[in-house]
Amino acid sequence: MNGSIIRYILGKVMQMEGALLLLPVFVSMYYNEPEGISYVIAAGCTVVLGTLLSVKPPSDTVFYLKEGCIATALSWMLLSFFGAFPFILTEEIPNFTDAVFESASGFTTTGASILSDVEMLSHTSLFWRSFTHWIGGMGVLVFLLAVIPLTGGSNINLMRAESTGPAVGKLVPRIKTTARILYIIYFGLSFIEFILLIICRMPVFDAITLTFGTAGTGGFGVLNSSIASYSVACQWIFIIFMFLFGVNFNAFYFILLRRVKEAFAMEEVRAYFTIAFTATVVIAINIYRSCSGVFDAVTKSAFQVVSVMTTTGYSTVDFDLWPTFSKTVLVLLMFIGACAGSTGGGIKVSRILILFKTGLKELASFLYPRSVRKVNMDHKPVDHDVIRSTNVYMVTFILMFVSSMLLVSLSGYDLITTFTAVAATINNIGPGFAEVGPTQNFSIFNGPTTWVLIFDMLLGRLEMFPLLILFHPELWKEVIDQRKKKIYTDFRKKRIP
Amino acid sequence: MNGSIIRYILGKVMQMEGALLLLPVFVSMYYNEPEGISYVIAAGCTVVLGTLLSVKPPSDTVFYLKEGCIATALSWMLLSFFGAFPFILTEEIPNFTDAVFESASGFTTTGASILSDVEMLSHTSLFWRSFTHWIGGMGVLVFLLAVIPLTGGSNINLMRAESTGPAVGKLVPRIKTTARILYIIYFGLSFIEFILLIICRMPVFDAITLTFGTAGTGGFGVLNSSIASYSVACQWIFIIFMFLFGVNFNAFYFILLRRVKEAFAMEEVRAYFTIAFTATVVIAINIYRSCSGVFDAVTKSAFQVVSVMTTTGYSTVDFDLWPTFSKTVLVLLMFIGACAGSTGGGIKVSRILILFKTGLKELASFLYPRSVRKVNMDHKPVDHDVIRSTNVYMVTFILMFVSSMLLVSLSGYDLITTFTAVAATINNIGPGFAEVGPTQNFSIFNGPTTWVLIFDMLLGRLEMFPLLILFHPELWKEVIDQRKKKIYTDFRKKRIP
Repeated sequence: MNGSIIRYILGKVMQMEGALLLLPVFVSMYYNEPEGISYVIAAGCTVVLGTLLSVKPPSDTVFYLKEGCIATALSWMLLSFFGAFPFILTEEIPNFTDAVFESASGFTTTGASILSDVEMLSHTSLFWRSFTHWIGGMGVLVFLLAVIPLTGGSNINLMRAESTGPAVGKLVPRIKTTARILYIIYFGLSFIEFILLIICRMPVFDAITLTFGTAGTGGFGVLNSSIASYSVACQWIFIIFMFLFGVNFNAFYFILLRRVKEAFAMEEVRAYFTIAFTATVVIAINIYRSCSGVFDAVTKSAFQVVSVMTTTGYSTVDFDLWPTFSKTVLVLLMFIGACAGSTGGGIKVSRILILFKTGLKELASFLYPRSVRKVNMDHKPVDHDVIRSTNVYMVTFILMFVSSMLLVSLSGYDLITTFTAVAATINNIGPGFAEVGPTQNFSIFNGPTTWVLIFDMLLGRLEMFPLLILFHPELWKEVIDQRKKKIYTDFRKKRIP
Repeated sequence: MNGSIIRYILGKVMQMEGALLLLPVFVSMYYNEPEGISYVIAAGCTVVLGTLLSVKPPSDTVFYLKEGCIATALSWMLLSFFGAFPFILTEEIPNFTDAVFESASGFTTTGASILSDVEMLSHTSLFWRSFTHWIGGMGVLVFLLAVIPLTGGSNINLMRAESTGPAVGKLVPRIKTTARILYIIYFGLSFIEFILLIICRMPVFDAITLTFGTAGTGGFGVLNSSIASYSVACQWIFIIFMFLFGVNFNAFYFILLRRVKEAFAMEEVRAYFTIAFTATVVIAINIYRSCSGVFDAVTKSAFQVVSVMTTTGYSTVDFDLWPTFSKTVLVLLMFIGACAGSTGGGIKVSRILILFKTGLKELASFLYPRSVRKVNMDHKPVDHDVIRSTNVYMVTFILMFVSSMLLVSLSGYDLITTFTAVAATINNIGPGFAEVGPTQNFSIFNGPTTWVLIFDMLLGRLEMFPLLILFHPELWKEVIDQRKKKIYTDFRKKRIP
């Protein structure tokens, strides 16, 4: 294993995080808040540690999928860890576990909070909280690929480990250009949303932070009422942009290239739209009685549907009070999630499509065992490896979900709270039902359970495998063997000069 | 498609059901109950209809997996339908939907009831209810294969459609002998259980009916308190025999052949035991405070664990009142289910094992992409087709589960009731939690929802595909084309003699 490249990447990630930690300082200067000093300290420490790690260039710049996964998993752990420091230093979230939860929830774009009163936070910290969503949405390593002259090696592996969905495609042959295009789309869409919110007379601070939350499909708000107190016009801007950030970014790339037809022909995007639309209609009908008219019902339904499906987690109503049918639909949307290659979480529409199609194929093979059938997506046969890894993804997801549920159930809350707390974190949504519903928060859990949920958020964001291989015994065996060998060689070098 | 063989098999199944409907008549004679006459009428009608269907021998005795699946699916529908007749005729369950639910719940060995007071039923009907468990446990078509000289064709397809688990193995080269061996084991174990219960001074009627319920892993009781009012000795007999009927019957066959070592070496059986044992221990610890000592806690825990895991559904306590952790464990056991090739339901331990192993393999392939690994069971590599169909089974299971949940949620009960009502029927368990908990029943649901649950019970018992292919458009296209062709040929025959 190439340990030196992992160390180098981790150093670069920390340097970057340190630089990003300076942004809230400007906010603190504008609002004249004392919290800025904590951010300067946190930024300083992070940059110094990052520089120490990356000062020695890697001995070997080639890295494989294994190194890509490990670097990604460790990067996200470090990000969450150091992102929590300012919360502790400002004493706004003095508890270490809670601070890491809030930070991990930010970077993984979950949006679950342990705070019962977000309005008590300084503008500085509110900004940082939302900004972590924006950083985490597109991915940190993708950003590194876009701006830093990293290595000549096979850096698609970094992108593969961090990107979402069953198969990662390069938009253009050069991975660096792909990363840049993705960031340009991300910047552009965020900017348009911000401008539209300003036009609808939202305060600038709210517009910036909530745009970060939408773009990363995060969900941290700046008011205790989440989005409910903003105008209906603003709510519709959120609905549209949450939906857009849940679309496969390849579609936007097609649109940029004026291949609009291809963008709309993408099967995943069509399915994503169909599911969201159907869910909005059936829920609107189901909640109609408690609303003040058709438009109100559609607005409330569309907002919650899009927010949950894209795994953003903003809310305009307490959907925990909705009828069981609507709640069941929302639970399903929690798991389906957004498109692959978007900033959203969940299992991803393309995986669901592949699974659905393989199911139909199997059924047909019972009828006509000798006919050969292929699973197609966008008129192309799906690679057998993709089908297999999609199936295995589901299995791993279920195993992880179930194990987490068992651990969380030890806290003794009811089954719905237990189930949706895990669902809301592993799918990177934010709110669940009952004790973790949209008007509640995650402060009810004790230390060990909070760590389980932090782990789940990272699992969900990194789509299981990059994080799980850290626990594979064979990896540790390799690391220990390598170390032993090194000690032995060093020892021989000393004895036989 | 060979329609004539399907018709013939259905006729034979109905004749058999008619004959079996006469058994409760003896019970009614013994207890001097007027209900016997209804059973005579029901038996008569069923036999007559069955004879009409099978009087003309099939034109072609060869049938493939397709015909096997269709015959099995239709047989089970007919069984449930005609098994409901006596309940309606005796006016003990006058509502048609409810009667079919009770009958389907019996044959599929679910044990969910719409009756709030089973003690009101006549002995005759109590006997029939439990007897349907015993018939359904081993399978009706397997029984047909064992006793009736059916066809010289490839009748493994009938067995494959009805048996449980990912891969059906023949114990001996001749399928008929395999079926007979299975029935001998089934008879033998049931007989031993009955004798032991009698030794523990259980009334003969209770011992017979409850043995039927254990053997089929059904769960219909004869008292409102299920098993709680019997002695602890009887409870332990149930624990042991529920567990045994959840074991892969191949293991018993090995024991019969004195290859005891092989029986205990079966990976699935070991995993089944390990899961049941672990669950018993952790639940016993979790509920310890509410029990009167270690033995009481272990007895209560073991009974509920084995009952739920084997999908029997007997209960000795209201486990709906247990702490969330214990309930979560029970929910997981509901889905894991018993061994393949047993009378139990659920996803089956062997499937879980295969899925778990494929997950581990995938994880390793992230670390070492070039190494070739195989998934092994019992030291033999698992066939690629079995892995694929196991994965697809899971996906189909989830899709069906989710669709059912959506439909059931329209009834407006809480999420736990909705979720566990579907889980308890699709896994053929019986009781769930909340409104369908062990002290409640399924009469709360309205007509359409009851039909969804009936469908789920059949889906679970037949393991999805045999039932689902009935709804595949290609099958209907074939049937219609065949009919058109026949009409055309008949027409030509008449015109050109």
